[in-house]
Amino acid sequence: MTHTIEEIARALGTEALGDVSLTIRSAAEPGSAGPDDLALAMSPKYAEALNGGKARAAMVWPGADWQAMGLAAAIIAPRPRMAMAGLTRMMDPGQGYGSGIHPSAVIDPGAEIGIGVSVGPLAVICAGAQIGAGSVIGPHCYVGTDVVLGENAFLREMVSIGARVRIGARFIAQPGARIGSDGFSFVTPEVSAAENVRKTMGDQGEARAQSWLRIHSLGAVRIGDDVEIGANATIDSGTIRATEIGDGCKLDNLVHMGHNVRTGRDCLFAGQTGISGSVEIGNNVVLGGQCGVVDNIFIGDGAIAGGGTKILSNVPAGRVLMGYPAVKMETQTEIYKAQRRLPRLMRDVAALKKAVSKLGSTE
Amino acid sequence: MTHTIEEIARALGTEALGDVSLTIRSAAEPGSAGPDDLALAMSPKYAEALNGGKARAAMVWPGADWQAMGLAAAIIAPRPRMAMAGLTRMMDPGQGYGSGIHPSAVIDPGAEIGIGVSVGPLAVICAGAQIGAGSVIGPHCYVGTDVVLGENAFLREMVSIGARVRIGARFIAQPGARIGSDGFSFVTPEVSAAENVRKTMGDQGEARAQSWLRIHSLGAVRIGDDVEIGANATIDSGTIRATEIGDGCKLDNLVHMGHNVRTGRDCLFAGQTGISGSVEIGNNVVLGGQCGVVDNIFIGDGAIAGGGTKILSNVPAGRVLMGYPAVKMETQTEIYKAQRRLPRLMRDVAALKKAVSKLGSTE
Amino acid sequence: MTHTIEEIARALGTEALGDVSLTIRSAAEPGSAGPDDLALAMSPKYAEALNGGKARAAMVWPGADWQAMGLAAAIIAPRPRMAMAGLTRMMDPGQGYGSGIHPSAVIDPGAEIGIGVSVGPLAVICAGAQIGAGSVIGPHCYVGTDVVLGENAFLREMVSIGARVRIGARFIAQPGARIGSDGFSFVTPEVSAAENVRKTMGDQGEARAQSWLRIHSLGAVRIGDDVEIGANATIDSGTIRATEIGDGCKLDNLVHMGHNVRTGRDCLFAGQTGISGSVEIGNNVVLGGQCGVVDNIFIGDGAIAGGGTKILSNVPAGRVLMGYPAVKMETQTEIYKAQRRLPRLMRDVAALKKAVSKLGSTE
Repeated sequence: MTHTIEEIARALGTEALGDVSLTIRSAAEPGSAGPDDLALAMSPKYAEALNGGKARAAMVWPGADWQAMGLAAAIIAPRPRMAMAGLTRMMDPGQGYGSGIHPSAVIDPGAEIGIGVSVGPLAVICAGAQIGAGSVIGPHCYVGTDVVLGENAFLREMVSIGARVRIGARFIAQPGARIGSDGFSFVTPEVSAAENVRKTMGDQGEARAQSWLRIHSLGAVRIGDDVEIGANATIDSGTIRATEIGDGCKLDNLVHMGHNVRTGRDCLFAGQTGISGSVEIGNNVVLGGQCGVVDNIFIGDGAIAGGGTKILSNVPAGRVLMGYPAVKMETQTEIYKAQRRLPRLMRDVAALKKAVSKLGSTE
Repeated sequence: MTHTIEEIARALGTEALGDVSLTIRSAAEPGSAGPDDLALAMSPKYAEALNGGKARAAMVWPGADWQAMGLAAAIIAPRPRMAMAGLTRMMDPGQGYGSGIHPSAVIDPGAEIGIGVSVGPLAVICAGAQIGAGSVIGPHCYVGTDVVLGENAFLREMVSIGARVRIGARFIAQPGARIGSDGFSFVTPEVSAAENVRKTMGDQGEARAQSWLRIHSLGAVRIGDDVEIGANATIDSGTIRATEIGDGCKLDNLVHMGHNVRTGRDCLFAGQTGISGSVEIGNNVVLGGQCGVVDNIFIGDGAIAGGGTKILSNVPAGRVLMGYPAVKMETQTEIYKAQRRLPRLMRDVAALKKAVSKLGSTE
Repeated sequence: MTHTIEEIARALGTEALGDVSLTIRSAAEPGSAGPDDLALAMSPKYAEALNGGKARAAMVWPGADWQAMGLAAAIIAPRPRMAMAGLTRMMDPGQGYGSGIHPSAVIDPGAEIGIGVSVGPLAVICAGAQIGAGSVIGPHCYVGTDVVLGENAFLREMVSIGARVRIGARFIAQPGARIGSDGFSFVTPEVSAAENVRKTMGDQGEARAQSWLRIHSLGAVRIGDDVEIGANATIDSGTIRATEIGDGCKLDNLVHMGHNVRTGRDCLFAGQTGISGSVEIGNNVVLGGQCGVVDNIFIGDGAIAGGGTKILSNVPAGRVLMGYPAVKMETQTEIYKAQRRLPRLMRDVAALKKAVSKLGSTE
């Protein structure tokens, strides 16, 4: 599918200049763009590479001298990544799953399939499941008993959704995402060493070795509208009530959400981040990659943590965090600097001790 | 399925008080409990919320004044999470997989399927596999060649088990768990830079750039009784002998077990923890979430590590650990405190240097 | 399949001694080896265990007195792990997937299947996909639209490959590996708090709460020859161009590769390591388990990082790293030592302050 420069600019709500009737097939990096591509040159750094490619049109920054770059047309992108959102949506060729219900899919007669739903080969949809209109159930997907899935969901291949999970509109799940696995919750008949350690911060006490008994997950998972879950990410079911992911949250690949977690809206959890059981998270929280959050704490609205941060205690709203254990990012930056100077500090203190001892003895 | 208060208390081995003939449909949090729910109010903190719900019966702590809470009946829970284990087991509605062998399952005629086994839609069971009586093979599961799976296994959807893996009784696997992937084991023809670095702790030496040759995994995985593996967790096969997971071990979501790992019984590995190749782990070891263990070391019986701990050397039995690199938890707590005061310490030492220098010069 | 000692030694390019016509069924650890096994006793430490087994032949180190160990034959292994690569390749019994196209596989008529390809039960191959000669597509695999897969690929069960991914020869993917999931790329209409934090290293600024808009992934993934991807690992598609994994790279289980990442050849990424978006990685880079790399940086040729290292800035070629944040391994070793002495250092400085203050006052 092709678009004219004018159509693209209109869709993005930005300005088009030059020969706006030029037709575009796809987007490309400046150096590898062909004559039918829209080159992405939203900063001077990328504009230079235009010479190596054959683009006739580019998306450029406000004020760029696009004619001097040898272009016939240009789209102005005042906020480049925002323009990318619109542009990539228009240009996305999709996965090519095809429409309709594939004959190899196994759909229980007790499932309710909405209008315009497509179901890929070898997908399974169980009794009582309700699939919202316009949804795409990818190949090899599993939608469990009594699941409610909102309108216009898009499940990539091999996604699984456990029994009784409820999901809002426009849900996106990447390959291998697991929604509604059982929570990791075990107990020993008597107080365990691990329980003692948590209380004493280090002392095992007198607990004897015991085996673990399982606490089953009776709750499922409830997910709001406009949520996206990454490849091979996992969201555990709640123990009594559902684990809850708020509207607009985005979870990256291999993210883990423990049982009973509750998040607000519009949170971002980057790759391999893990949230332990019963954590309460506010709105607009952003956790970088490989963050970890200990169980049973809360993280206030708008908190932000850098990659690798391990959060071991409650976080007030608006706090910016880093480190293991997490402290304010500015404190952590100071700590890092100090750490690198630690070996030298050690030597300084040793020298001081000698000097002071000498001073003392010469008094 | 409903149960009377009396039946529940008897099953849990605890005391029931009041109108013990009340029938219960499910468990609920106090604030959202309906008249047929058993409210969970095992501490005073939760009891207050009973007013917001409609529960007639609750599980309460020993000595609670349940009548003053407006309840008609109560079950006493001296160890709340222990009571939860029994209660949630009784109340678990399950995944609704259905019984019998689904016609879409692909079962090799050379597989032995025990009595009462159910096999979900589109599951694959290979030649030589033996499935113990009463086991549930979920939808889209894969059970490889010559796998032995004990009695009463429960495999959630999309679990895969590689060739020759042997698993004991009552195995539970969450969606997407991978048992018996090949070990990550590679070698270069000549000594590699990475080998030099390991020996010298930092020096690459003179190694030249080389490609990696694969060491295949001839061993498989052997898993004891009563083991549970989390969603999308992975357990690699051993190189010559099997990787071994002892009786009663529980692995959370996204946990990784490298090739040749051997664990004792009743260990707990929380979410996203990773164990490198050839690690030997004792009994009753508990590792919090996102722990890491370097290859070829041992961890003694009853060792416990807090979330995020990176274990880089052998751990004696009974040790409680924290930090990167792992040290005794009490030491780590001291280090954390000291770290936060590091920037101030830097300033103090600088001031001391000045003062001492001045003292020295005024002598 | 059996092999004589002579055949094995010839295949490994090493020396055989004694009764080289002995036939071997499989490899075994010295203590559990039977009379038809080749015991692996490549160091004196393992040789002692031979007494506990029944091996008649062993692989031993150069100069070992194999006759004194009671063996009838021996293979000399000057570089033990190198010998293991060859030996395990010969002895690998495989997964037993069987040959040919399983009738339950769903193969689009528009797919091109090379000579000698086998396709397991319930695999899906989409229109436009090209499968190279001799490849094995395991059970439950998914090969997307227009995927190009080179010769002699081996896909274990439940691997998924998204649309337009291109992969070289001899590709190996472990169970549940995900190639070509969509990148994790979101933007807010106006500057977000997270953007401010990145710039200021800690200050959220005045950004208001906003929802996230998705940037779609138009690029796919391009993978070189001789690449192996671990179980449940994930590789995201690029935004405009493809994410690229160079020839000979090996990714362990649960590794995450973000969108637009580009790696050179012969890199090794151990378990649970995560690479954020748009990272450029050179050749022969080795990252231990649970490493993390922040987005938009580069890592030079031959860089090596120990397990758990979090790389937050550019890395020059040949650098050896450790820690969070990553510093030179030798620096980190010094920091670790100093950290453990921190509590004592705190006390020393406090004592010094007192002593200096006293000296000052007695002047």
